[in-house]
Amino acid sequence: MSSFPITYRTRVRRLAERGSYDRETVYSILDEAFICHVGFVSEAKPVVLPTLYGRDGDRLYIHGSAANRMLRDISKGVDMCITVSLVDGIVLARSAFHMSVNYRSVVVHGRATAVEGGEEKARALKILSEHVIPGRWAEVREPSEKELKATAVMSIDLKEVSAKVRTGGPKDDADDMRRPTWAGVLPLEMQFGDLVPDELMVAGIAIPEYLKVSSPKKRK
Amino acid sequence: MSSFPITYRTRVRRLAERGSYDRETVYSILDEAFICHVGFVSEAKPVVLPTLYGRDGDRLYIHGSAANRMLRDISKGVDMCITVSLVDGIVLARSAFHMSVNYRSVVVHGRATAVEGGEEKARALKILSEHVIPGRWAEVREPSEKELKATAVMSIDLKEVSAKVRTGGPKDDADDMRRPTWAGVLPLEMQFGDLVPDELMVAGIAIPEYLKVSSPKKRK
Repeated sequence: MSSFPITYRTRVRRLAERGSYDRETVYSILDEAFICHVGFVSEAKPVVLPTLYGRDGDRLYIHGSAANRMLRDISKGVDMCITVSLVDGIVLARSAFHMSVNYRSVVVHGRATAVEGGEEKARALKILSEHVIPGRWAEVREPSEKELKATAVMSIDLKEVSAKVRTGGPKDDADDMRRPTWAGVLPLEMQFGDLVPDELMVAGIAIPEYLKVSSPKKRK
Repeated sequence: MSSFPITYRTRVRRLAERGSYDRETVYSILDEAFICHVGFVSEAKPVVLPTLYGRDGDRLYIHGSAANRMLRDISKGVDMCITVSLVDGIVLARSAFHMSVNYRSVVVHGRATAVEGGEEKARALKILSEHVIPGRWAEVREPSEKELKATAVMSIDLKEVSAKVRTGGPKDDADDMRRPTWAGVLPLEMQFGDLVPDELMVAGIAIPEYLKVSSPKKRK
């Protein structure tokens, strides 16, 4: 797969060897996570809000409270930074200085636009829903026109994008290698727990196959 | 415990009933998570970067690449927004419109200052390390003066702070309640996996008790 262009804003500066611009890496991170942190500037100050998102090729759709608050400003031309982070483990080095975290993150810079038309909005919501829980959309009641109007969705194209990835064990100084300290990685992963059925659900509904997943990583 | 004052910037606007300003709620979220998303404004545009943090009373210490990049601008007086999010589950409603997520988040607004003195910096790094893995600091080699100089740490006081929490099952419309759709919550939790020892570790080191934890939630 091709790469995103490296721009002034997307070039990874610190620990540049961890930077990546290829679509395969960027897509795999974006497709595993489903919560992003949206940053925008409001009255000259930064605001960061978590929200759901979905991906359609080189376009992201975002949803919810962030979109609502941003929409107040969007006609004024607000820029956005969307950051998605997956934490894969805590890196336990022999020295405090080399303590680290294994992670995969994507940072998207760009200008978001509000999704206005009912048709694109419905399509965006389907993409978002299928991104979070593939298979769900076919089972739920689709949004009414009134609901579509009440839902804020924004889109941003993936143009200025970078990924940053750290993997592997601790990188200790040679002088510390013989220290009698446990060293290695404590892996970390999001796991789904046991489903909690709604008490008001009509009787006799079996758990659908698409909900029988152990972790977000395995939901696709 | 007391509450943080509600200010123009911290007042939760959308779904205000989910907002909270009491220290107990804010502290519990900040103490369970250890990755924050730091937002700041760089050349009039928003930047959001993930990084580690620790809490000392009403002060947060942040660390790493975000701090490094921010430090370039800090003398110019950059404001910061730090957001911490925990995702507890996916709320599966009977309609697309009511799909939701159970989450706990904290948003901190304020002005960060660089931690300059070696003594406070060492103290901040200890707080940060103990925040991520309690018990670890006593085992690792403490940072040298040279390492302290190479480490960027910033502090921000908890003054303008709000939490937002969603719990419970789906809130469907009355008309949708008899739909034969599985409804409820798919819980989500960060879990630690099996420790991966460093191949170069000296022989005969037992796994310390403080690393025998199943999830970040239980690490304190």
